[in-house]
Amino acid sequence: MVSDEEFSTLEGRVRELEDKLAIYQLIASYGPSIDGGAVVEAGRLWTDDAWYDSDAPTAGSDGVHGRAGIEAVAKMCGEMSVGVAHITHLPIVSVDGDRATAVGHSNTFHQDAGEFHIARVASNRWDLERIDGAWRVRRRTNRILDGSAESKAVLAEGLRDAQEADHIR
Amino acid sequence: MVSDEEFSTLEGRVRELEDKLAIYQLIASYGPSIDGGAVVEAGRLWTDDAWYDSDAPTAGSDGVHGRAGIEAVAKMCGEMSVGVAHITHLPIVSVDGDRATAVGHSNTFHQDAGEFHIARVASNRWDLERIDGAWRVRRRTNRILDGSAESKAVLAEGLRDAQEADHIR
Amino acid sequence: MVSDEEFSTLEGRVRELEDKLAIYQLIASYGPSIDGGAVVEAGRLWTDDAWYDSDAPTAGSDGVHGRAGIEAVAKMCGEMSVGVAHITHLPIVSVDGDRATAVGHSNTFHQDAGEFHIARVASNRWDLERIDGAWRVRRRTNRILDGSAESKAVLAEGLRDAQEADHIR
Repeated sequence: MVSDEEFSTLEGRVRELEDKLAIYQLIASYGPSIDGGAVVEAGRLWTDDAWYDSDAPTAGSDGVHGRAGIEAVAKMCGEMSVGVAHITHLPIVSVDGDRATAVGHSNTFHQDAGEFHIARVASNRWDLERIDGAWRVRRRTNRILDGSAESKAVLAEGLRDAQEADHIR
Repeated sequence: MVSDEEFSTLEGRVRELEDKLAIYQLIASYGPSIDGGAVVEAGRLWTDDAWYDSDAPTAGSDGVHGRAGIEAVAKMCGEMSVGVAHITHLPIVSVDGDRATAVGHSNTFHQDAGEFHIARVASNRWDLERIDGAWRVRRRTNRILDGSAESKAVLAEGLRDAQEADHIR
Repeated sequence: MVSDEEFSTLEGRVRELEDKLAIYQLIASYGPSIDGGAVVEAGRLWTDDAWYDSDAPTAGSDGVHGRAGIEAVAKMCGEMSVGVAHITHLPIVSVDGDRATAVGHSNTFHQDAGEFHIARVASNRWDLERIDGAWRVRRRTNRILDGSAESKAVLAEGLRDAQEADHIR
């Protein structure tokens, strides 16, 4: 006979898997939201008070602030007449209740005179929050991988936190 | 005491997770099937009447048709004497019964005189169907990300559909 | 009424999903471990007797051996003063008890005089093992995708094995 406790333990494991896949879905949605110029859909991926904390020159001196700021980026990319692609690679994901983090690489491809080139390669930490049942980005830290200690620390600290959460020793 | 209904609800959630991972597996299989020249294995990823609806010059004027068409692409790539890589990035996945869609970026790397360069960056929508218990590609829409409205619409519409299915507002 | 057998079957399906996501997490951790210079965390991803069997010139004549060898690679990358990124793309994953394989593409981006370029594109087979409850890499086979039969076979054989395990015909 299956006890309520056994069932509820299994349900918790299923919920954790659902959370992880929902976070993959969120991370996978970023690039299409921007490169597709999907303004409203892009905004929804972020919290109202989101901060895209990026050192990309196009992100201004202090990154992009708020859902409105993100929507403006999607609008601008949607209006570009040359190719641009924002790629986010398979991240390390850690879930803790209604908070989660995702850590990994990203790069952009830009088209110029018909040829594609790599415009930027960066390290990323996504601080996520579950709001109204959906995972959203509260802060994305994005640092160009140029050999700086700061850009490496984003990856190293993110991995360290994830291994601790996963009890990997 | 656990009711049949509770159990069956949980089983449905597990099945949805299994579907999503099976679709990741399918999408992840495309590149290796082509670049590995795995002719039979490449064909199996697609339905008999598949359509690889691509605007790549190498795909002809109307894309690649049928499982046999896909097998021919795998055969050709398998015989190439220089490096070629078909990369599919983490997609947005939506499942609806025996149908599903996957939306995201892809790019190719080609080798020329020992150096790798980016041959193509594209937006993609994969229309999938479960046949004989396995997910297969019925149609893949692939548009070069060159700033065209059509290439952006593939991403924007795919994201919109997925957010609607996931009840994200 | 839910029988113990039904419950245990469902639990087995959940465990398989957990294994697959744990393997995604492991594969996603490789790049950050190296590019972040996270020496100890990098080593933990591998078994003590690991073999990074790579034909990259930087890997020496016979690849990198042992956890200590991997740690040395992470240390070296962590000390580089220019940008370097190790990207692992969404893999095909097959689990068989406490063993698993992951197959797919990887590429590196290097920075030179402020510009990023593609240093290497390769095919990969990761032979994984569950040790002390955590998935670790026992051997990673990595071959430059230069048109060689060997580099293609890594992908083709990996896909073949995965389709056989998944009963895809």
